[in-house]
Amino acid sequence: MALSFTGSRLDRADHVRADPERLAGYMNWKARLLVLDGLMPALDETNRLAWGTLADASEDAELVFLGLDYSESESGKACFAAVPQRGDASPRMANPQLWSLMATLAPDDLALYGGARSIVDWHARHRFCAQCGGDTKLAKGGWQRDCTACGTSHFPRTDPVTIMLVEYDGKLMLGRGLGWPEGSFSALAGFVEPGESIEEAVAREVLEESGVKVRDVSYVASQPWPFPSQLMIGCHSYADDDRLTIDETEMAEINWYARDEVKAALAGDGPFRAPPPHAIAHHLMHWWIHR
Amino acid sequence: MALSFTGSRLDRADHVRADPERLAGYMNWKARLLVLDGLMPALDETNRLAWGTLADASEDAELVFLGLDYSESESGKACFAAVPQRGDASPRMANPQLWSLMATLAPDDLALYGGARSIVDWHARHRFCAQCGGDTKLAKGGWQRDCTACGTSHFPRTDPVTIMLVEYDGKLMLGRGLGWPEGSFSALAGFVEPGESIEEAVAREVLEESGVKVRDVSYVASQPWPFPSQLMIGCHSYADDDRLTIDETEMAEINWYARDEVKAALAGDGPFRAPPPHAIAHHLMHWWIHR
Repeated sequence: MALSFTGSRLDRADHVRADPERLAGYMNWKARLLVLDGLMPALDETNRLAWGTLADASEDAELVFLGLDYSESESGKACFAAVPQRGDASPRMANPQLWSLMATLAPDDLALYGGARSIVDWHARHRFCAQCGGDTKLAKGGWQRDCTACGTSHFPRTDPVTIMLVEYDGKLMLGRGLGWPEGSFSALAGFVEPGESIEEAVAREVLEESGVKVRDVSYVASQPWPFPSQLMIGCHSYADDDRLTIDETEMAEINWYARDEVKAALAGDGPFRAPPPHAIAHHLMHWWIHR
Repeated sequence: MALSFTGSRLDRADHVRADPERLAGYMNWKARLLVLDGLMPALDETNRLAWGTLADASEDAELVFLGLDYSESESGKACFAAVPQRGDASPRMANPQLWSLMATLAPDDLALYGGARSIVDWHARHRFCAQCGGDTKLAKGGWQRDCTACGTSHFPRTDPVTIMLVEYDGKLMLGRGLGWPEGSFSALAGFVEPGESIEEAVAREVLEESGVKVRDVSYVASQPWPFPSQLMIGCHSYADDDRLTIDETEMAEINWYARDEVKAALAGDGPFRAPPPHAIAHHLMHWWIHR
């Protein structure tokens, strides 16, 4: 499975983050700065991510150390991204421009951009301490923020989300969320809550949204989704019943589709519009029709 | 696998959270309030979690709706927990008292307590808006906090952590973290970072801490770990080499152990002290010796 937003070529070089001297040594004229306009990347003439130097950042910019790129230099080129100015961390969600970018960028560039985007966006939205309201400042090369008032350390957030295939009698449950375009269907999904295992979160979400009880939840694959910072955890499960009680506060429609219908939809010629290849749901459906 | 902190008997009743009228209807004299001293629970004479009523909470307490308990009443008893007073959300880590509690509490009580603990602790540490520094207040039955100044909504946090078995030539890689007691070994573990899949996080963490490259990462099981709010994602992987380069800033020792040694350790009579049953690592090791 070639999952999107995975396969970044950067070595995150964790040991550099916590070593101020080493980090400073990398912040020189050879370091590269990811070109961002808010949270949008720029592309060069070969459709690769555009890079500048640290001199392109504003004087007071907070810089995140993304890692070392060994693809162009044996000693590793240090890669950074600047935290957007206040109010400039947009667009927040995957808009049409971003979807077209996903189709354009090479997989390793897309993964690099996704990771960079999630972390700079986290900084932009965490300038203050949730514990005391004080100012926070970037620390450990951008993998931490420390409160200047109470000293509390804050860490980037990654939100686990389960997304699941539910199978009954050879058919797959797919839903259309409220506000989605007519005809667009995908796998149900929801955030894992504190106090739940992955398997429990899958069962709860399916029951909440469809009224269907599932069993034998199994893990299939995972991928990051940087809008803003989800970890999509793809699962499969079985239902013993296909009777639906749809949660109308979340879902517009839920249907059961046969293997042939899902296959046709993935080929662009089915009874519904399938999610695009950059969504993990697309790969889960492929996995299901080929298993 | 009987994983700890899973199997809560509460129905989280998501539809109640977002419905202020319905929620208010449940906040009556029949509702139950989890007895907490800071973040420590109290036990009744049968070693079950102790409960009071909403009248036991202080007037200005923020109340989290934990869910409905159908085990004692067909209509469901509403269960709440109060957010600890400022500075009172302790102990933060799993201390000896908590380890003994894990051994005492029935599994469904332990799961209920773990989930409640994670969410009230999150509230206690998020009284201010990370975006603007303003005061936040509890919303949606405690599954959200809203900023009173800028209106931003904040959601409880669940941090995905990979914890992994690494196998080479029939032996298992286990490590002793800095500061751990002499002789105590467990699986390596680390937080999933923004921009990584589960499989990528496993490979990065093992490489960082041990210098070993892994392949064929597979998912085994997951469980919540409420100190403060981790989702432990248990995996297995293979190494092609057993040469170790230990990261001495994180690990005191890393060793390879044969199946018989791991088996003996789990039985309390091996060359190292194995993690206790409430840690997912214990179950991963059991899974490995029996597969």
